[in-house]
Amino acid sequence: MQYNPVEMIGQSIRSIPDWPKQGVTFRDITPVLQNPRTFRMLIDIFVARYMQQQLDLVAGVDARGFIIGSVIAYELNLGFIPIRKKGKLPFETVGEEYHLEYGQASVEIHVDAVKEGQRVLLIDDLIATGGTLLAANRLLNRLGANVVEAASIIDLPDLGGSTLIKETGLPVFSLYSF
Amino acid sequence: MQYNPVEMIGQSIRSIPDWPKQGVTFRDITPVLQNPRTFRMLIDIFVARYMQQQLDLVAGVDARGFIIGSVIAYELNLGFIPIRKKGKLPFETVGEEYHLEYGQASVEIHVDAVKEGQRVLLIDDLIATGGTLLAANRLLNRLGANVVEAASIIDLPDLGGSTLIKETGLPVFSLYSF
Repeated sequence: MQYNPVEMIGQSIRSIPDWPKQGVTFRDITPVLQNPRTFRMLIDIFVARYMQQQLDLVAGVDARGFIIGSVIAYELNLGFIPIRKKGKLPFETVGEEYHLEYGQASVEIHVDAVKEGQRVLLIDDLIATGGTLLAANRLLNRLGANVVEAASIIDLPDLGGSTLIKETGLPVFSLYSF
Repeated sequence: MQYNPVEMIGQSIRSIPDWPKQGVTFRDITPVLQNPRTFRMLIDIFVARYMQQQLDLVAGVDARGFIIGSVIAYELNLGFIPIRKKGKLPFETVGEEYHLEYGQASVEIHVDAVKEGQRVLLIDDLIATGGTLLAANRLLNRLGANVVEAASIIDLPDLGGSTLIKETGLPVFSLYSF
């Protein structure tokens, strides 16, 4: 049997029908994280992809982006910066709004989280409509960061987010498409 | 000059006066995470403490507990399980309520996150009143876990949380007290 980590991890992603609402199938990564073997394989795929990229920082999006972003940062000997929902960061922040199905939300970053020109990997667990990652990318660009790629475990291409992100010129990497 | 990681990390914790409200000083760990050196030293203190403890899982509390809990789990070759705010976990959950200054909140865990008897490290960034960690500990106990310790970067002993946790019989470890 061939060692195929992408396939082995993929088999641990759990499909939850009708969540968070009727007709939507949620892809649940918690079984991947819970098993030390698949958790390790998952992180190591990202580590291998970015180890030669001369990155300075990994920016993780609140909250599931923290789980993988922080480990990748540690393993690559980089700093980790959180991009958080509005009102969660205590120091001076800048914010960017994005549209939800009903109404708006916004994400924030500390104004001193990135230095001009630093090479940043932007990471979240999932790309759906792309609203959060696009807003996070705008935040990083406002602070002068050089965002190298937007990475996720899962892409839902039918929702269009990864296409919208690529149209801004930012490369996108995802392990799985559903 | 002696190499003292606890002192070096401590110097990177930023005090934010009057946040989240007048009269409260918030201890901000984001500068520790942002610097690859202090981030690494921080994680390595926890790794050294728990590497001989025969743990099975690290449970991190939403959301800052995810940032350090996931890295510690990875480094110790353990699984990571998230304990989340109500309504965030997609599979079948159990929940526990706790009191806030005004009203109540609750945390949830997936019912299959822990197997009976598994040795679990419970981790969050900060212990204040202890409400969240006490509720998280009750959840883990309901699933049959053997919670080995509650660990945090920061303890605010005047708010009494660490004392309350110890009174339940659960050991507490924190790097800093303010």
